[in-house]
Amino acid sequence: MTKLQPVLLSGGSGTRLWPLSREAYPKQFLPLAGHDTMLQATWQRVADIASAAPIVVANEEHRFLVAEQLRQIGVPTPSILLEPVGRNTAPAIAAAALQAMSGGDDPLLLVLPSDHVVRDAAAFRAAVAEASAAAEQGALVTFGIVPTGPETAFGYIHATGAGPGVRIVERFVEKPDAATAQSYLDLGGYYWNSGMFLFRASRYLQELERFRPDMLAATRTAWERASHDGDFIRLDRDAFAACAADSIDYAVMERTDTAQVLPVDIGWNDVGSWSALWDVARRDADGNATLGDVIAIDSRNSYVHARRLVALVGVDDLVVVDTDDAVLVARKDRVQQVKDVVARLKHEQRSHAALHREVHRPWGSYDSVDVGPRFQVKRIKVKPGARLSLQSHTQRAEHWIVVSGTARVTRDNDVFELHANQSTYIPIGAKHRLENPGSEMLELIEVQSGDYLGEDDIVRYDDVYGRA
Amino acid sequence: MTKLQPVLLSGGSGTRLWPLSREAYPKQFLPLAGHDTMLQATWQRVADIASAAPIVVANEEHRFLVAEQLRQIGVPTPSILLEPVGRNTAPAIAAAALQAMSGGDDPLLLVLPSDHVVRDAAAFRAAVAEASAAAEQGALVTFGIVPTGPETAFGYIHATGAGPGVRIVERFVEKPDAATAQSYLDLGGYYWNSGMFLFRASRYLQELERFRPDMLAATRTAWERASHDGDFIRLDRDAFAACAADSIDYAVMERTDTAQVLPVDIGWNDVGSWSALWDVARRDADGNATLGDVIAIDSRNSYVHARRLVALVGVDDLVVVDTDDAVLVARKDRVQQVKDVVARLKHEQRSHAALHREVHRPWGSYDSVDVGPRFQVKRIKVKPGARLSLQSHTQRAEHWIVVSGTARVTRDNDVFELHANQSTYIPIGAKHRLENPGSEMLELIEVQSGDYLGEDDIVRYDDVYGRA
Repeated sequence: MTKLQPVLLSGGSGTRLWPLSREAYPKQFLPLAGHDTMLQATWQRVADIASAAPIVVANEEHRFLVAEQLRQIGVPTPSILLEPVGRNTAPAIAAAALQAMSGGDDPLLLVLPSDHVVRDAAAFRAAVAEASAAAEQGALVTFGIVPTGPETAFGYIHATGAGPGVRIVERFVEKPDAATAQSYLDLGGYYWNSGMFLFRASRYLQELERFRPDMLAATRTAWERASHDGDFIRLDRDAFAACAADSIDYAVMERTDTAQVLPVDIGWNDVGSWSALWDVARRDADGNATLGDVIAIDSRNSYVHARRLVALVGVDDLVVVDTDDAVLVARKDRVQQVKDVVARLKHEQRSHAALHREVHRPWGSYDSVDVGPRFQVKRIKVKPGARLSLQSHTQRAEHWIVVSGTARVTRDNDVFELHANQSTYIPIGAKHRLENPGSEMLELIEVQSGDYLGEDDIVRYDDVYGRA
Repeated sequence: MTKLQPVLLSGGSGTRLWPLSREAYPKQFLPLAGHDTMLQATWQRVADIASAAPIVVANEEHRFLVAEQLRQIGVPTPSILLEPVGRNTAPAIAAAALQAMSGGDDPLLLVLPSDHVVRDAAAFRAAVAEASAAAEQGALVTFGIVPTGPETAFGYIHATGAGPGVRIVERFVEKPDAATAQSYLDLGGYYWNSGMFLFRASRYLQELERFRPDMLAATRTAWERASHDGDFIRLDRDAFAACAADSIDYAVMERTDTAQVLPVDIGWNDVGSWSALWDVARRDADGNATLGDVIAIDSRNSYVHARRLVALVGVDDLVVVDTDDAVLVARKDRVQQVKDVVARLKHEQRSHAALHREVHRPWGSYDSVDVGPRFQVKRIKVKPGARLSLQSHTQRAEHWIVVSGTARVTRDNDVFELHANQSTYIPIGAKHRLENPGSEMLELIEVQSGDYLGEDDIVRYDDVYGRA
């Protein structure tokens, strides 16, 4: 039996679910449809049928998120391939195929976007098993979603043949207009293109070699020159940057004569917009899907994500998303324009496009919970074993109050430990460092006071993350 | 020339502008239509024509707000009459009349609700001058707003006579339905009942004596037995509680044969709802009235009050009010149902109905900016000269970081001062007190840490505000 190697694609930047999703923390890292994040759920869905830990292809900027989220669900040794620049799916999957074959195997690659919902995981696993024979025999199998309506947001796959099992792909078609989508539904034999694939690693590379040898060559160079750092495999920047960008659909699937499709009915949703999230969410008798503290008076068919208390009065068909630093209020049938908000924020170089109020760092995270004249309050989390850089500030004092865990504090020539309810003070100009020497998360409150509190008032003397 | 004594009625509880307005901090104390609060603007509007500092009639719970807001705009010695319970406007104005006559004068009382907008203050002052002769001669003059539309939210005053100046009131009529309101507009001679009055103090008391002697007697007793505390005059609780509750309209104006009305066109609005606030606000080319950080994409005729960034996408005719701890999203023509939200919050005994996140206290205020497991961060302001109670906590430690001003700290047997950027620590169980010995506001950050952080973990040993 051929090994099954899941490949999780974590490339999305997810502007369509702003403000919950941000560039630095996109959709795949959020728990949008349950307790686990989308990335975690994607792995959990196939963990039982996988022959090995996943290969994840991710944006370098997201490496600590990927590693942390996989660690949380107990994935032992993932291979995390880091893209220095995005080059779309064809090169990403090629790098994963090279990685998968590096031990001498030629497994079946189960290629999965890491930000889709699949409600019926058992049906999906059964579909993978059903598609395996064709894939083992050399087919490039894609999973086609049996359409539930004349959807215009997806590409379609046209296939001939009936009955169960895989069938030959006739052609891939672009996102249709509404009338065309309806005709596909009426005709039958058209399936939504889910972006999930199953094929032998070698077969994908053969077909890529055939149609885009330049792309395979560039990716191979980037992979061969990759630097290794724990679970992280950093593709070579120059080589990968020189690679053309293209999707697997354009580069391979639409050209190969071995494309097959397995129609599946698995409760799939790409959660590509707030309205899609409303579609898959549990709704109350008024059609409202709410998360958090919501009071809805005489309101219907709305989606509310509440960080604070959110009250609706007399509204229908809205999306309301309340986060620490931004609130979105959108008509549910206009949510595609959320990207215009993000574009404006980027144009104005505002942090709301890229960052949440809580900012993730290799050592943990900080959340600026209050800012006023002459002070700022941050909630800081430091991972077990992590240490911040040795640093000093010329214009601010810092006060640290330990909430839980243990802090090892360096302050000029002193090194001492603080436990819960204890606090210390870093005067202006003092060289200091914060570490977590313990085995549980260190949580502390930092109060900065001074005339200038910008992030750029920092001198770094030494940094384990290479930022000094 | 008879003296002019403004009387500011500060009785409203303002649930219709939730979540900006809360029971403990209603509409009259908010800067809803400019830089000044509604109460401040009400005084500023008439300060130039006033013969004396205002008499303010207020809910006892709001006494520090009234005093502080008048102090901010330099009102020297207001008389602040405190109602232990609300008894509507007839007794409130009676108490103000008794107070106004206590020095032996019999001034004209200019009775003003403290939560209305008057865009044309000069026109209003001219109207007061115009109405003075009739009032001096004994008339009870009300200011009738020349209607700009068939409004159904106000009562109307019907008067005969044309030309400039005051005219005889024929009758007061209740809030009409739309058709009736339209007929009033068509007929002419109907004016909106603004709740603003001008009359001699003695004349009001005479008429109240005539129609509601019980009410005058109870109010007189409450006023005679009042306790005096600086600018505060606390009406006697038992006597005032025994007074019947009624409006000046019902108790006096609809019965007296000396009611006159001066039609005025002064840009008046009672700002009785979020849609009324949109009506009076400056709007952009899309009809949006926005305050704060707002991005509106393809959205029209909406009112947005943003504490954070608020983004609208494809919405029309909405009200969005974003505060520290609650967000309201309402259809603009359904804002009267905001009271249903407040009713639900009260029913569930939730603090969002009564309190803002920032809570005002006699000594200053605190704002709970962040709460997590085992910790809470408060931003605390202490007024010059103010001191909190001597207290201790059995389950939490407190850490104080001074942001600006000077703190005098009592910790068990030590008393010491802290200045900006300095901090201290109050261990669990220590008796402590915080004071502001300086002449500027003391601002500090308090971080509480411990297993239990409820407000009820407090032992008070001594309190200058009588709470020990």
